[in-house]
Amino acid sequence: MESQTSPIRIGIIGYGNLGRGVEAAIARNPDMVLTGIYTRRDPSQLKPSHAGTPVHAMDSLLAHKGQLDVLILCGGSKDDLPRQAPELAAHFNLVDSFDTHARIPEHFANVDRAAQAGQTTALISAGWDPGMFSINRVMGEALLPDGATYTFWGKGLSQGHSDAIRRVPGVAGGVQYTVPVQAAVDKVRSGVRPELSTREKHTRECFVVLAEGADAEAVRQTIVGMPHYFDQYDTTVHFISAEELAREHGAMPHGGFVIRSGNTSDACKQVVEYRLQLDSNPEFTSSVLVAYARAVHRLRQMGQTGCKTVFDVAPGLLSPKSAAALREELL
Amino acid sequence: MESQTSPIRIGIIGYGNLGRGVEAAIARNPDMVLTGIYTRRDPSQLKPSHAGTPVHAMDSLLAHKGQLDVLILCGGSKDDLPRQAPELAAHFNLVDSFDTHARIPEHFANVDRAAQAGQTTALISAGWDPGMFSINRVMGEALLPDGATYTFWGKGLSQGHSDAIRRVPGVAGGVQYTVPVQAAVDKVRSGVRPELSTREKHTRECFVVLAEGADAEAVRQTIVGMPHYFDQYDTTVHFISAEELAREHGAMPHGGFVIRSGNTSDACKQVVEYRLQLDSNPEFTSSVLVAYARAVHRLRQMGQTGCKTVFDVAPGLLSPKSAAALREELL
Repeated sequence: MESQTSPIRIGIIGYGNLGRGVEAAIARNPDMVLTGIYTRRDPSQLKPSHAGTPVHAMDSLLAHKGQLDVLILCGGSKDDLPRQAPELAAHFNLVDSFDTHARIPEHFANVDRAAQAGQTTALISAGWDPGMFSINRVMGEALLPDGATYTFWGKGLSQGHSDAIRRVPGVAGGVQYTVPVQAAVDKVRSGVRPELSTREKHTRECFVVLAEGADAEAVRQTIVGMPHYFDQYDTTVHFISAEELAREHGAMPHGGFVIRSGNTSDACKQVVEYRLQLDSNPEFTSSVLVAYARAVHRLRQMGQTGCKTVFDVAPGLLSPKSAAALREELL
Repeated sequence: MESQTSPIRIGIIGYGNLGRGVEAAIARNPDMVLTGIYTRRDPSQLKPSHAGTPVHAMDSLLAHKGQLDVLILCGGSKDDLPRQAPELAAHFNLVDSFDTHARIPEHFANVDRAAQAGQTTALISAGWDPGMFSINRVMGEALLPDGATYTFWGKGLSQGHSDAIRRVPGVAGGVQYTVPVQAAVDKVRSGVRPELSTREKHTRECFVVLAEGADAEAVRQTIVGMPHYFDQYDTTVHFISAEELAREHGAMPHGGFVIRSGNTSDACKQVVEYRLQLDSNPEFTSSVLVAYARAVHRLRQMGQTGCKTVFDVAPGLLSPKSAAALREELL
């Protein structure tokens, strides 16, 4: 691959935390230009972080087809992406961060059908999990076939679990942190390949603001017993004020580890670990989406159309540098 | 990519630590078969770890051309690979572990010329550094363009530095361990992006057996003052007996970290770390070579000939699983 002569033109679809992160990431990548943000809201009401960023109505997207190289879809996996990604892949190259693991094969098939028909390149499920963590699961298994893979998440704020807390009657606000159990991490790092239950791998820590007159103990019981979300974990509930919630828990840190532990001979244990420590989960996810948008643009230029995932992208395609520069500077 | 129907036929070129590691790794990958070891020694004198492994004279290699899918070159970067890789790439798909960083562009050009002419696929510089660490340097930079990359090695046995010690007059035997400085690692992990001198990043620890009548202090002075190898480091020299050297320092552990620390916005630091903790450096390098041999075989089948590096290989090509299985199980 050679370095780009003209910048890659990116369109942002949807402007929440992820869209804002993509806007910030494009500003840090000189080989890209943000053509515009497309929104279903009234464009005049949307205030981008960078005052100069154009905002357009979603309706105008198709008319801008010739001015866009890659779309970055910044909507949610539940309602937005399953509908938007196949629809838009018929006309545009795109990247999304679809993260409902169980529904990835279905989403892939829908997007692939549209991208094959439209001769576009669409990469789904970019981010860190799915995404960077997935790559490390595949490579760990390929390098150490006689081994076991462990994924730990956190310490970090889980959006899904925080939403679940906030739906509990008597809760006025709250957040939930997923915390890896240090003893389990240490055991895995030692190379012994332990069998670990759900409860042994992570704990859950909740910071909750009670609604006026709510019964704290009843709220606690409802949270810790919530099926799937909390009942299989050791969960701690802290009751705090609305002021403390706003002051101490407004950030969205996250991270975690993928560890592959295996043997290359009976005597030799080998441990491979990939670790993320993120001050902002959405901003890091956005940075991944932007790097994969560069790869999508290049794959399309190479005639590789259809639906792709991070497993289909060679590392060199993510970098703005030429293959020769990468070999000389970073190999 | 689809799963293989017939096993990938591998030939090993050279049978030292790396060749033995490749032999062990192939036994752990059911989609591969070891066709034979090729040696410049008398084949009847070479005893493979698995009694059933065929051993052939190097002279017979070209006659076996139709029975081999990929060669794995297990010689050294100083004398063997610069000559062997271009010579063999004219006829065979191959993987090597060429690790003289400064001479990679030259080696690439030589191998590429031969592979283009022979319509073969040759991947150079696979292993962990160059190799896995290189991939993490490229991806770290691509995901966090506003950042800094740090590579630490160890704690591990350095073959080059051990050789240097053994050339010192008065030394009967010895090994050298490269040790990352914990304070430096901690500072980098915190996300502050320190500027670190060579001395601040690693220390060097030597275990030396003196020759009879040698002057310990003179030997110590010669070692710690050796240009490039030791003079820029804080070096400790321990004098031990030949028995202790054999008993305690026969293994070849190694490892290290690649850390990318960057900002996605002024307030948000993000830290990505890739870490290896290896009981056996050559066995892990061998496992990487074997996984890349699988990818080389597939690239050749896809018609992608010429010289490649790890930067050109999509993660999915390393796995024996189909793309659909990878998406379903590991994404």
